Amino acid sequence: MNVLALAGGVGGAKLATGLQAALPPGALTLLVNTGDDFEHWGLTICPDLDTVIYNLAGVNNPETGWGRAEETFTTLRAMSLLGGEDWFGLGDQDLAIHLRRTEWLRQGISLTEITDRLRRSLGISTAVLPMSDTPVRTLVHTDEGDLPFQHYFVRRRCEPLVIDVSFVGADEAQMSEAAQEAIAAADLIVFCPSNPYLSIDPILSIPEMRASLIRATAPIVAVTPIVGGSALKGPAAKMMREMGQMISPLTVVDRYADLLDGFVLDRQDAILRDSIDVPVLVTNTVMTDLDSKTILGRETLAFGALLVAGAPAQGAALDKNVSSS
Amino acid sequence: MNVLALAGGVGGAKLATGLQAALPPGALTLLVNTGDDFEHWGLTICPDLDTVIYNLAGVNNPETGWGRAEETFTTLRAMSLLGGEDWFGLGDQDLAIHLRRTEWLRQGISLTEITDRLRRSLGISTAVLPMSDTPVRTLVHTDEGDLPFQHYFVRRRCEPLVIDVSFVGADEAQMSEAAQEAIAAADLIVFCPSNPYLSIDPILSIPEMRASLIRATAPIVAVTPIVGGSALKGPAAKMMREMGQMISPLTVVDRYADLLDGFVLDRQDAILRDSIDVPVLVTNTVMTDLDSKTILGRETLAFGALLVAGAPAQGAALDKNVSSS
Repeated sequence: MNVLALAGGVGGAKLATGLQAALPPGALTLLVNTGDDFEHWGLTICPDLDTVIYNLAGVNNPETGWGRAEETFTTLRAMSLLGGEDWFGLGDQDLAIHLRRTEWLRQGISLTEITDRLRRSLGISTAVLPMSDTPVRTLVHTDEGDLPFQHYFVRRRCEPLVIDVSFVGADEAQMSEAAQEAIAAADLIVFCPSNPYLSIDPILSIPEMRASLIRATAPIVAVTPIVGGSALKGPAAKMMREMGQMISPLTVVDRYADLLDGFVLDRQDAILRDSIDVPVLVTNTVMTDLDSKTILGRETLAFGALLVAGAPAQGAALDKNVSSS
Repeated sequence: MNVLALAGGVGGAKLATGLQAALPPGALTLLVNTGDDFEHWGLTICPDLDTVIYNLAGVNNPETGWGRAEETFTTLRAMSLLGGEDWFGLGDQDLAIHLRRTEWLRQGISLTEITDRLRRSLGISTAVLPMSDTPVRTLVHTDEGDLPFQHYFVRRRCEPLVIDVSFVGADEAQMSEAAQEAIAAADLIVFCPSNPYLSIDPILSIPEMRASLIRATAPIVAVTPIVGGSALKGPAAKMMREMGQMISPLTVVDRYADLLDGFVLDRQDAILRDSIDVPVLVTNTVMTDLDSKTILGRETLAFGALLVAGAPAQGAALDKNVSSS
């Protein structure tokens, strides 16, 4: 089974690691948000691509969620002493990937090709694709004005109130051939438990991408990023409140509406399954270690396989939902 | 007394430190070789400018001669694991200066302005000027073919036999306004004990620079980089042999011929003073610590002051030379 997973940062990278562990090498392809990308210290930084790559390679920092394990920050301190910008935590090991990528981008090599070289050099069997080779930049409209994503997310620590989010360059962005092929070849498509507004929406904001996903024969399953009325990581719940939405998995289901063929709900929210109009898998979605990532990966794949086969996935609630969808 | 010193890497940086210690703050200006500059990891590296700046700031690594004290190489190791080039020792602290410079260069800021910002942010009172804002690149013609400077110097560890050296771009290179002003304002010009072929020649290879130095009213004093038949550091002696020259301070005097108004010779070579047609100061030129750097700085300045005043500088040998020059 060829599986394509859409992912942003931390939550997406966790499930990606679980899916990779649950599948034969090469069966998984990741399609990753690049709306967070930005220029810093003259380098092109792709935080979500790097988080996914570091997680898949097992060199990520599990405490912070971003960056590499056993990281040092010597260049950052030296940069600060030189009067340079020091609000974004670029580590010494991490810096290598930004230098390599930036040099290749300047040579005219596509981000898709660069990402493929980087994941291979870290020994990753899973294909990792940026959502586009054309820059798309997430802009957060807040009560303090419009903030480029990293200024909202890191510099201002998600404190400003969010009014809306837009994706500069999305309308003109092209899908890469590799992304088109990955969608066409997929037997199952998974939306990882990433922030819908900041991680999955930018991917879907590329008109050709959304159209390809709607056309895709593979069923699309989303895993909830909201558990028990809050987001496990990041500002998803805070943003829902600020944008006048319920802090609920149902808000996520609504968001993906026309794309969704199945939804993975956390046990804490089991009561909501009857309110969801697509087949639902209820399970533990909180990933704390490789085991829990792998279990959620396996369960998501089994649920998806049933949808591929056109069969109901779980008990009565699922039967009801299958019949109503 | 305004002093302008021409310098390359290690030897030049040592005397520059001594001159800085011997002069009031702001009286010294350094004019530094950029023929060693190159692109690496997508960054513009200026090794001689950095060696001079690190030495003047007192943060240099005294063991290696290059780079910073108490340096780590985390990014370099990570870069190597990513398949990147790892033959040039870029340290983690060092990297900050290359990142900052490269970002500014890309914004169109001149190397002169960038170097000034960098030396100020490191608290250096001495002005440090690149020899030109136009790239000039030292090319070493060897028995293994033409090698860009760092490939000869670092990658091939100066092992190939040198046939000749040329300076790509020198004919078209412009002097900066700051360099012109520094030469015009100088009361004394010092050629530091740097490699004549690789450190001072590139500076002199800019036609406008040589013409300005010849026109300058300030006397020019060179400090020998050859002591007791060898170079204290680097390939100067090896290159002299390979290019069919005597390994001798006299070869250096010949090289600077029409520019020279005085020469500082090491005690070990005192016997040669009668063979030199300009006033000679004989002293200890081997610099091992800040004290010996400062003493040589002071002696060079005192010798220069006598030349400025038109008076003989030292004993009989000098009298003879003054009368013959």
